Amino acid sequence: MSNQEVMTDYLLAAIAGLKAAGVTRGVISPGSRSTPLALLLHRDPEIECFVDVDERSAAFFALGMTKVDGEPTVLLCTSGTAAANYYPAICEAEAVNLPLIVLTADRPPELRGVGAPQAMDQQQLYGSHVKQMIEMTVPENQPNMLRYSFWQAANSVTEAKKHPKGPVHINFPLREPLLPDLEKSSSFHQPFVYVEPIKQLAEEMIQQVLPQLQKKGVIIVGEALTLTQAQHLRLFAGKIGWPIIGDPLTNLATCGIAAGTFISQADLLLPQIDETFQPEVVLRFGRLPVTKNVLLWLDRLPASTTWLFVDASGQWQDQLHRAHYLIEAEIDCFTDQWQHHDFQVDQGWITQWQRVQTVANQIIVDQFLDHPFDESQSVRMLQQSLPTDAQILLANSNAIRFFDRYGSETMQPYRVYGNRGVNGIDGLISTVAGIAQASQKPTYLLIGDLAMYHDMNGLQLLRQYQLPVTIILLNNDGGGIFSFLSQQTLAPEDFEPLFGTSLHLDFQKVAALYDADWSLAESVEAFQMQINASAMEPRFQILEVRGTQQEPVSLWTLSQKRFAEEWAK
Amino acid sequence: MSNQEVMTDYLLAAIAGLKAAGVTRGVISPGSRSTPLALLLHRDPEIECFVDVDERSAAFFALGMTKVDGEPTVLLCTSGTAAANYYPAICEAEAVNLPLIVLTADRPPELRGVGAPQAMDQQQLYGSHVKQMIEMTVPENQPNMLRYSFWQAANSVTEAKKHPKGPVHINFPLREPLLPDLEKSSSFHQPFVYVEPIKQLAEEMIQQVLPQLQKKGVIIVGEALTLTQAQHLRLFAGKIGWPIIGDPLTNLATCGIAAGTFISQADLLLPQIDETFQPEVVLRFGRLPVTKNVLLWLDRLPASTTWLFVDASGQWQDQLHRAHYLIEAEIDCFTDQWQHHDFQVDQGWITQWQRVQTVANQIIVDQFLDHPFDESQSVRMLQQSLPTDAQILLANSNAIRFFDRYGSETMQPYRVYGNRGVNGIDGLISTVAGIAQASQKPTYLLIGDLAMYHDMNGLQLLRQYQLPVTIILLNNDGGGIFSFLSQQTLAPEDFEPLFGTSLHLDFQKVAALYDADWSLAESVEAFQMQINASAMEPRFQILEVRGTQQEPVSLWTLSQKRFAEEWAK
Repeated sequence: MSNQEVMTDYLLAAIAGLKAAGVTRGVISPGSRSTPLALLLHRDPEIECFVDVDERSAAFFALGMTKVDGEPTVLLCTSGTAAANYYPAICEAEAVNLPLIVLTADRPPELRGVGAPQAMDQQQLYGSHVKQMIEMTVPENQPNMLRYSFWQAANSVTEAKKHPKGPVHINFPLREPLLPDLEKSSSFHQPFVYVEPIKQLAEEMIQQVLPQLQKKGVIIVGEALTLTQAQHLRLFAGKIGWPIIGDPLTNLATCGIAAGTFISQADLLLPQIDETFQPEVVLRFGRLPVTKNVLLWLDRLPASTTWLFVDASGQWQDQLHRAHYLIEAEIDCFTDQWQHHDFQVDQGWITQWQRVQTVANQIIVDQFLDHPFDESQSVRMLQQSLPTDAQILLANSNAIRFFDRYGSETMQPYRVYGNRGVNGIDGLISTVAGIAQASQKPTYLLIGDLAMYHDMNGLQLLRQYQLPVTIILLNNDGGGIFSFLSQQTLAPEDFEPLFGTSLHLDFQKVAALYDADWSLAESVEAFQMQINASAMEPRFQILEVRGTQQEPVSLWTLSQKRFAEEWAK
Repeated sequence: MSNQEVMTDYLLAAIAGLKAAGVTRGVISPGSRSTPLALLLHRDPEIECFVDVDERSAAFFALGMTKVDGEPTVLLCTSGTAAANYYPAICEAEAVNLPLIVLTADRPPELRGVGAPQAMDQQQLYGSHVKQMIEMTVPENQPNMLRYSFWQAANSVTEAKKHPKGPVHINFPLREPLLPDLEKSSSFHQPFVYVEPIKQLAEEMIQQVLPQLQKKGVIIVGEALTLTQAQHLRLFAGKIGWPIIGDPLTNLATCGIAAGTFISQADLLLPQIDETFQPEVVLRFGRLPVTKNVLLWLDRLPASTTWLFVDASGQWQDQLHRAHYLIEAEIDCFTDQWQHHDFQVDQGWITQWQRVQTVANQIIVDQFLDHPFDESQSVRMLQQSLPTDAQILLANSNAIRFFDRYGSETMQPYRVYGNRGVNGIDGLISTVAGIAQASQKPTYLLIGDLAMYHDMNGLQLLRQYQLPVTIILLNNDGGGIFSFLSQQTLAPEDFEPLFGTSLHLDFQKVAALYDADWSLAESVEAFQMQINASAMEPRFQILEVRGTQQEPVSLWTLSQKRFAEEWAK
């Protein structure tokens, strides 16, 4: 067999392994060394392939697709800095436990460390941020090489899919010639089935947990949930009569089920409530919600409080170092456990939470009645107007915070996403492109101008694949988030260059470059109309809302003041 | 002392250490955790600070500045994926031995691995691609902490500056409050002097090398050289009567000294010359030149050939695994060694090289006489028309190859740069921004449309700092390089999506977005006029030259055919 045939068989076996373990899609960035894998993947009818020149963007695109269904997405790039561009999305995938399968092409060992073009050390390239790094052998005409290639690919995908899920990296050293034999078809296959275990709660744990659930408690959720998970949690919260607190990513407010008492104004009310609101038990799922006020409130709870953590991945996100019960279980599995138990709901406890939530919500409702149209108002309206079945990605910094602060329960279910693993402002447009592609539903992105600029190349994905994404751009020309933080006390000569960071970009021109529709929303009515229209006829468009960095701060300060006064009555 | 004061003193001591070891500039990307370092660096009158929101771009900007003078540049970003965005430029800096000082802010140890916002493992973040990774302690009010902080910063910069030079990473865990005491000034300083050793050739090595230099030899250079180094090498080549081969990055053709016999058409002539051109000795500096034909020609040399490698960093870039003599010396030091030796120049040897070079050059000259204006023609003209003292960065893929193929010796000296460590198509606009900033000279970038798109955010640097960069954009709407490679044999349905990759971007709109002048060069005269004008009045502009992916291939094939015919006569 020629070297070309040997390489082709070897790579086809690897691709068969990827598929056997559940891979159905990939994102390829062009390059030379990766040519054989790129061609064979692209030609495979069972793998849907996308192409993106910018690897940083490509990796976030893959992340977005995997967010929608949890299924693995393959990334492929050539050797060198191309692979380094994947790093930000890999770090995010690691933090939110998503299975990305990163394939990199490499020079063979004899061309490493000798100044060969486009060669660098790709061993452990992503350090501790992938679950596994595999160096494949150079394709060889040896017995069992196909079995090995199939097995390794299938096993790496499985590793990525096992709890705690996360990215894996396979490095393929390839020698010239770099063209595969395109006449060949896969010559190796064997059955390969991985079945995830169901993690049942042991009877001993049930006996320990049950008495805790019969006390006064609160549920704190900071994990990105599917609508189904959110529904389970709300029903469970209703059953045991505990208030439930969670940010937009938990989808608790938007899952279409109004069971239980959801505290949507946690950010506003937690700093004001007294010790009668202190729970005996805190039941936590995932990390903490976006607002820091949850953290601060929990931190003030007395040492006598009992803390329960439920996490399927066994990663206790216990920033306050207080975990007492570590429960390794899927959310649905945990909530279903108590279906047949009767809980005596403490009406006084849940009623006082309902009361404070009602007061806080009324403050928000009232203040927007006569409020001029601005960033805050637009986010409030967006949160309430998104169509059933929509998908929305909330960018980091102000976008997710406003959505959290001004949100309330919606009648229509829709799904909210974020990149809250490491909270970067990078890659958000590419991520939403992935969400739109994999969900095939009308998709929205709420984003500020700095984050939009950071991932401008992502717009090419929306353009190229004609994805129906409406971008709501909160344009305050710079880093609006810092006006909420301690940095705002700085003198302008310190603040402006380092935190204000105005870019003075004209986003109408950006829209023109990428063939997006663009409009400036200047009134509540106009904005509402645009959102409604986007639901009727989804398309790639930018809806710009202009504001100042200071406006939202003033409004929020006023909300806090009004609530404090009202609640004191 | 308050925690704030302790932190401030500690960080001021670190900054004093950076400065003591030679740091005078930095690039800051905004963030929250990095606030104390950002403010203190930005306020330091001895450190010139630049601000860039996109960390990927920021790091290449720093790389570009360091390219100009070899001096270290500091990078600072916040925790999380921000730091991961530095990775591509770090890999390039490692490969070309440039001292980048990467400072990252981090959560303190107690907030790691517990789901705290924007926290990820930053230990060994850049793996084997930095020379050193230092985890600083959290600022503490302990004796000697200031001495430690100063010492560590100074020593890390020194590590970056020592051969082989390269990037280092210092991670700063910081606790809240994140505002420093801006009233404080540096309270710690001590002298800190690092003097690089001069690497003299040992007498024993001189005795071994001298007889080799008296044989028939060629000099092969693939290292980015300063004009001074290039001048030294040309004088040396003239003295010993050896032809010298090197790509544009070596600046051998553009250093303003016409000594020795420079083979500018190596790409054209090497495949055609017979064994009478085989040298007895190959003297190599750095890695191999850009054209693969040098590699292929060297690979065909008989085993009896003697190979000498000179490299100050002690990294033998010996892709053919043939090194016999490893000489650790600076180029100037090596060439000056032989100043007082008399060499008997073999006239027959050097004359035959001059003859083949003259014939090859004439082919290029003649073929452009009646050639329509296109990408190849524009590059030829650019290479010959750049003004004295200009700086030009050649992008990877076609840009550098055309400049190499169609180049010849210029009367006016100018300096050529590339990112040829790992040959990525990323970060090139940001790199040229750094070159323009640090050199304060009229600066040019020759780049294709894919590479331009990859680093579009770099344009914001040119705009923001009003850098006088003329971008010559070779727009063939996609990956033109692949039409030269084996991929061009593929069927269109395989070639177009994976290698052709047309973006269909309108670069006039790109120019409008970033306030650059834009013009389309459609004739030799118009192009020449634009280049002349850019020399008179340097400004941020895009000169677009449109072509097809196929045109340059046809022209090059024709050149090869004509040369083969002419040389056979």
